[in-house]
Formats: sequence, structure tokens, C-alpha cells
Amino acid sequence: MTSAEFALIDWIRQRARVRPPVSVGIGDDAAVLQTTAGRDLVVTTDMLMEGVDFLCPDTSPRLIGRKALAVNLSDLAAMAARPVAVFVSTALPRDRGVPFAQELHAGLLELADEYETTLAGGDTNTWDGPLVICVTACGEPLGRRPILRSGAQAGDWILVTGALGGSLAGRHLTFTPRLREAARLVELADVHSLIDVSDGFAADLHHVLEASGVGARIEAASLPIHADVARCVDERSPLAHALSDGEDFELIATADPDTGRRLLERWDLPTPLTKVGEITAARDCRLIQADGTAAPLPPLGWTHTFA
Amino acid sequence: MTSAEFALIDWIRQRARVRPPVSVGIGDDAAVLQTTAGRDLVVTTDMLMEGVDFLCPDTSPRLIGRKALAVNLSDLAAMAARPVAVFVSTALPRDRGVPFAQELHAGLLELADEYETTLAGGDTNTWDGPLVICVTACGEPLGRRPILRSGAQAGDWILVTGALGGSLAGRHLTFTPRLREAARLVELADVHSLIDVSDGFAADLHHVLEASGVGARIEAASLPIHADVARCVDERSPLAHALSDGEDFELIATADPDTGRRLLERWDLPTPLTKVGEITAARDCRLIQADGTAAPLPPLGWTHTFA
Repeated sequence: MTSAEFALIDWIRQRARVRPPVSVGIGDDAAVLQTTAGRDLVVTTDMLMEGVDFLCPDTSPRLIGRKALAVNLSDLAAMAARPVAVFVSTALPRDRGVPFAQELHAGLLELADEYETTLAGGDTNTWDGPLVICVTACGEPLGRRPILRSGAQAGDWILVTGALGGSLAGRHLTFTPRLREAARLVELADVHSLIDVSDGFAADLHHVLEASGVGARIEAASLPIHADVARCVDERSPLAHALSDGEDFELIATADPDTGRRLLERWDLPTPLTKVGEITAARDCRLIQADGTAAPLPPLGWTHTFA
Repeated sequence: MTSAEFALIDWIRQRARVRPPVSVGIGDDAAVLQTTAGRDLVVTTDMLMEGVDFLCPDTSPRLIGRKALAVNLSDLAAMAARPVAVFVSTALPRDRGVPFAQELHAGLLELADEYETTLAGGDTNTWDGPLVICVTACGEPLGRRPILRSGAQAGDWILVTGALGGSLAGRHLTFTPRLREAARLVELADVHSLIDVSDGFAADLHHVLEASGVGARIEAASLPIHADVARCVDERSPLAHALSDGEDFELIATADPDTGRRLLERWDLPTPLTKVGEITAARDCRLIQADGTAAPLPPLGWTHTFA
């Protein structure tokens, strides 16, 4: 996102008064509603637009539907919540007709069934404009409570699932939301903070640092770089891709060192879990190269732009 | 909606397996989640598109934002639920800039504050396409439980709030969602079924009849016709407008005759409540003219069309 978009969201956030039963409003991966004492509901929403989040006809409607749900499931994973109900609203280009719409919903339903969640409602529209699809997902905490961005503490280890970079070569359409990994993380350990990588590793790490009022040191040599980076033909280094490419949809977790060590020892899922750095009390974010030199790590990431 | 759109929704509905905690899925004004025993959460979503639901620059961004929330609050009213949290996703035309987006959210926040509900999240995007705004609203039952479309019983009185027709002359942007009326209805009486008039009185009445497996007789002379109908310059009669114009956002309620009578006696809100007909066991829907002649009343209403 651009500074103009962040400024707009800040403007909205300042004016959006948080009232019970909402306990977490704008500013995390999802909102939290305390519908009854001790029982939270986690709610997130994402809108995908033709020409921005996918291209037509390059992308099949089945993959578009899948992605529209998957990005929301990733936001639930980032709150350590499992999906219980999803809602799908569409603006369908009139000239693409019913089979296109059916394929789109088929892709979405297939993923919903995989995670045993219900497509519980939506709003189906046709128009002469481009395809827009907006999904809202409701979830329940996998552990005792949702894990927020704001819980990172100085000294925490920074852990990341999977590998980073090169998602736009195709993985951004086919990725697996890290719901199983989130479940295992909160089962094995007291995780302090959690976020998914949607804007880019560095940008999303900065969201955690800002929300938690802390800084970080990232070890460049530790960052797991995805093989897809080799498919991106440009002048940027593999490390630059891993730090700044958006839509990885991996999880960044923080936990105290003892917990982090135990997590790595006990981790038994096929998706790797890697320590990439540490949270610091000093509020800057630095990238440590293999030779020990340090440089500031700004919130690099994928951006929209306002005119 | 057209038959093609209804067919698509039916296709989706057949494939959307309803799993706990969802107790009501696709097919009512909103879904119902039983997050804990005896405590329901009602969730609804609506997408509004430029050129379909409003025109730019004819409509101010403040009124667009207001309408996007108001149609969702009307859906909650139609479930006898009060809003507790709302989520707003937007595709903002890049060239209209930040002040346009701020005005849109200001209109929405003003209405949210009026009903003491929280704007708890969303997804803010910019693009080169037309304005799209999608709102999801979560609510809690005003009474013991949500009131569905499917509860109408033969012999029930059919009651309607306010007056019908002519909404497109301007009221579709400024209407008051009938949350107070819904609260009073369930406070005063055991209402059997409830729906809001979004597609048009006849079309939405048919939704109730189909969901409940019943029919209806509507007294033409009883239908409250809105003064705005006089502002619609076309060849259709005032009655035709009241029966078929969309976006009235009034409530249609049914209740047994004793309850209906008591409701009308005790009704003390400024918005009128009028008996307009009765539910029948015979599954047809008929319009009774002042002279006693009867004619079939089809599900007339506002339509989108597929190519």
C-alpha cells in the first residue's frame, strides 16, 4: 500500500469508535468480537479486483475463486483462528455469463470444503464492469484466544513458515493458507505475535513492530528464499525478492527464545519453520548481512498508488 | 434479480454444505451462526456498484457510504437483529482521490454511530475501475432468536411498515433502516416471519411464501403507497409502483391474527404499521381489488439481467 492508502486507513481508524462486543477493531489481520465472555469470533474481509489481484482471461475463474477465499483464510491463520463461515459477494461481468460464475464459485467451494467451512451467504450481482469478488470469513480461535500483531516482545525469536519471494510467478493463486501451521504453532507454544505475509516480508514485519512498539534484527543468511524467485527475471537479487515480494501468505510468528527453541525442536509439519531474527527493544529494523554488517530494513513491499 | 441470477444462486446454494456452527445458510436476509448454545450471531453482506446501485457524480460519496451500510442494517432488521460490528471493503477509483474516500467513509460512520455499531475492519483498495463498496454486518438477535423468512403460517396477518413505491426518486439513498421497528415488533409480539423490501414488495413477499410453503391474499386498497410515487413520471399506476418498485427497505412481517390485532393496537412508533393481507394455505399469491375481483400477483420486482 502507498502512504496515501495508509493515511486513509489511519483517518478511518481514528474515526471508527470501538464499542463492545468488538475487542479488536481496524489494524490487525482481522477483528475480534467477544460475543460471549471468553468466546471470541474473528472476522476478516478482503476484496479482489480484476487487473489488480488477477488478470482475465490469464487466470481461470476457478483459481480466482480459490484465491479470493484463500487470502481470507490466511488472515484467519494470522490470528490463529479456524474458519467457521464465509460470505462471498461478487460483481460479475455480464458478458462472461453463468458458466464463468459457476467455475469461480466451484474453486471457492472446493477450498471451503477442504477446511470444512460453510459458504453461508453473499451477494451475487452482474454488471458491465470488471470482476470484483469480496469475501468475509468468520473464525474461532484455534487456541485459547486470537494471536495479535501487537504481542511481540524484546528478545523474541522471529520465526517464519515456508519460503519467501517469487509468489507472483504463480504461487499467489495456488498457495495453501497456513491454517494447519497456525494450529500447530499455538498447540506447541505460547506464541506472542502472528501475522501473514501479504504486503511483503519486510512490510508485514514492520506492521508487527509498529503494533508492538519494538524493533528487529533480521539475519539475511537465514531468510528462506523460495525457488520461485528464480522464475522472476529482473535485476533484483533473490534476497530482495524474499524481503519485498507480496502475497507469500506465509506466517511470521514471534515467541520468547525458550519457546522458539522448543518450537523448532518439536516442529513436525512438512512446511518448514525457520528462525530469521530477533525482536529488539530498540525500535529500528535492521538487516544483518553474512559478514556482520548491518543496514536499515525499511518496509519494502508491494504497493498500490493513488493519483 | 433475473431468473439466471436466481438459478446461479440456487446452483451455489445446492453446493454450499451447511456445517455447524452455521444454522441458517444461503437463502434468508442473513446467515445465522450459533457461536455458543443459545447465542446467535447474524451475518449479512451486500455489494454496491457504481452505475447499478448509484450514479457518480450524481450521488455524493457521503450518501453512497451511507447507503452501503444502510442496506446491510436493513437486512439485520429483517432478521430482527441489531448491528454489533460492520466491515467495509472498497475498490476506489484512483482519480477521485482521498477526499472522495473520506466523504464516503464519513457517511458510513455517521450511520454506524447512530446505531452504536463499530466499523471493525475492511479492505481499502484503489484501482482504475468504477467504485465498488461491499459491507458485511454482524448482529445479535433483538429478541430471543432471529426471525426467518420461513416462519409464515396459514392464517397469519401480513403487516408492512411505512409506505411503498417511488424509492428511486431519492429515498433509496436516504432511507432509515427499520431497526427500531424490528425491535418493537419482536418486543410486542411473537412475529412468525420477517423480510425487508429490497427487490420490491411482490418479489419479497414471494420469497416469504416460497420459504414458508404458503400463499397469500393481498388487499390492493390496503397497500400503503408512498407519496414519492407521484414523483415517478411514467405510465405505471401508483399501485404498480408500490407492488414492484425495489429498495423500499420497509419490513414485511407475519403474525397470527390475535397477535396481529394486538400489534396494531399497541403500535406506538411514528412509522406506520399496516395490515395488507393474509397468508393462505393455498400456495398461490393473489391481489384482491377493491371491487372484490382477484388476480394473480407474480413476483414483480427490480431486476438485473445477464447477457
